[in-house]
Amino acid sequence: MTPSETTVAIVGSGLIGRAWAITFARAGCRVKLSDPDPAVPEKAVGFVASVVDDLAANGLLRGSTPAETLSRIGCHAALEDALDGAHWVQECGPEAIAVKRETFARLDAAAGPETILASSSSALLPSAISEGLPGRSRCLVAHPINPPYLVPAVELVPAPWTAPWVIEKAETLMHAVGQAPLIMAREIDGFIMNRLQGALLEEAFRLVAGGYASPEDVDRGIADGLALRWSFMGPFETIDLNAPGGVADYVARYQGLYRGLFEGMKERVDWAGPVLKTVLASRREKLSEERLAERQLWRDKRLMALSAHKQRADDDIGR
Amino acid sequence: MTPSETTVAIVGSGLIGRAWAITFARAGCRVKLSDPDPAVPEKAVGFVASVVDDLAANGLLRGSTPAETLSRIGCHAALEDALDGAHWVQECGPEAIAVKRETFARLDAAAGPETILASSSSALLPSAISEGLPGRSRCLVAHPINPPYLVPAVELVPAPWTAPWVIEKAETLMHAVGQAPLIMAREIDGFIMNRLQGALLEEAFRLVAGGYASPEDVDRGIADGLALRWSFMGPFETIDLNAPGGVADYVARYQGLYRGLFEGMKERVDWAGPVLKTVLASRREKLSEERLAERQLWRDKRLMALSAHKQRADDDIGR
Repeated sequence: MTPSETTVAIVGSGLIGRAWAITFARAGCRVKLSDPDPAVPEKAVGFVASVVDDLAANGLLRGSTPAETLSRIGCHAALEDALDGAHWVQECGPEAIAVKRETFARLDAAAGPETILASSSSALLPSAISEGLPGRSRCLVAHPINPPYLVPAVELVPAPWTAPWVIEKAETLMHAVGQAPLIMAREIDGFIMNRLQGALLEEAFRLVAGGYASPEDVDRGIADGLALRWSFMGPFETIDLNAPGGVADYVARYQGLYRGLFEGMKERVDWAGPVLKTVLASRREKLSEERLAERQLWRDKRLMALSAHKQRADDDIGR
Repeated sequence: MTPSETTVAIVGSGLIGRAWAITFARAGCRVKLSDPDPAVPEKAVGFVASVVDDLAANGLLRGSTPAETLSRIGCHAALEDALDGAHWVQECGPEAIAVKRETFARLDAAAGPETILASSSSALLPSAISEGLPGRSRCLVAHPINPPYLVPAVELVPAPWTAPWVIEKAETLMHAVGQAPLIMAREIDGFIMNRLQGALLEEAFRLVAGGYASPEDVDRGIADGLALRWSFMGPFETIDLNAPGGVADYVARYQGLYRGLFEGMKERVDWAGPVLKTVLASRREKLSEERLAERQLWRDKRLMALSAHKQRADDDIGR
């Protein structure tokens, strides 16, 4: 099933839902927006209209025109209308387990038997969301980093009862629309990305709490240092290329160093303790709270330019 | 003191030394190469000659021409000749404490009293390198990520006795040549970057060892996910922009999630244990050992293109 033959229902059309709409629609899917608040889907379409020209200018509409992308997105007041004919449901409601469970019960009751039900949840396990549902085997988590039209990674997380065909179809669809799926073998709190982020943040807070480095130094060490190679290779390929004999050679040479460092990493730092004052002072010195929203727009522009750069580099140099 | 008024002696002209030579020379410094093996500085110049055109084409010579950059680099058979007139010594010898201590004793004896002595060491503490030297107060570590002409982050690490003027001058010089210095308040094993990298790698190995994810999934989650924003903002600015009220709001909302994850991160994984088989199989399936060197060239091309992209984005969108 190609994207142009696929209909996607977005259930919850706020920040995440509208970003998914772009992701699916630019690739050719028909997208049906719905939301408990009937005004929200129209606003989502307005948002899409406001960004498609920029995306096109950066070569990020996967060959679609802005008008084609927009024409594939429709708004539906009733959930059942949005689900009608949908092959894939991308649920993007509030991150509260009771709400998710209620939503998934409705989705499972109303959607056709072959429709896959995916939650965008970043922190709730798919087993908790779909437990007890008659159609629980077609449920999974498909967790994006926002916005998915600029950040391709999507975590596909099965519950213990998610059917293999569901994961296979999910993987196929995500590849087909240009995303980069991570296929978890089984669920774990934090999935992959939040666990990696949490481990890094924990050490970042520890370095600041211990008075070794400022928050700016940490950001510089990542943004002007480690994350450059990570941003096109990831950490395993990075270390594979960082020792003459590859990753086994790297582990033989350097595990001793890292084992020594780990001893100092076993105690948690309270991120809300005294260290927060230091982090907050550093951030607010660089950027006042009133300018956070403006800076988020800057971030999105940088992300768009980086995304366009990566596509060019993939084509010109290879990936 | 501007770069054009600064003379830098590179002591040890292999992989790291030759990369530092480009970094200093393109900014206008006079660079004097030396090495225990007298053939090595000439080879280093050959390497510089082989990459300056590519750097110029990518706008990465800081306004210098390839010929100007090369003309600033000289080779010296005797260490004392290289040190003559040097304001800054960048030591790039083998990563063995006995060798470093012997080298620094020679440097301290031969270099003028105002010359700063910086080691490129990634893992040895500056106190261990300079302990007991008469001129220990002018010694520090200036640890780059290789190659520094493409990766600007440099860790400036003082020993307890390093004089404040040394750190100040080091910071000034690094900014002047276009690097991004991280100023550690005091030394700690792993400095900043290897501690952050170690924390992330530890969780990466743990996810693979636990059978939750493949090494490729981890790499995808970083390269197509987390590292995109990190590569131009770092982790603290990322979370500052990821909650409506900034970083304090982020900590209030999400620390509970991360605290829960930390419980499962307290035990070390042996990177050389069964997990290494999985990582190795995954890497060698993507890339045979014979092709590691070729892939390193690909990495350097990607890094060069990314570096050029970041400079353009800094100019066009702002940093």
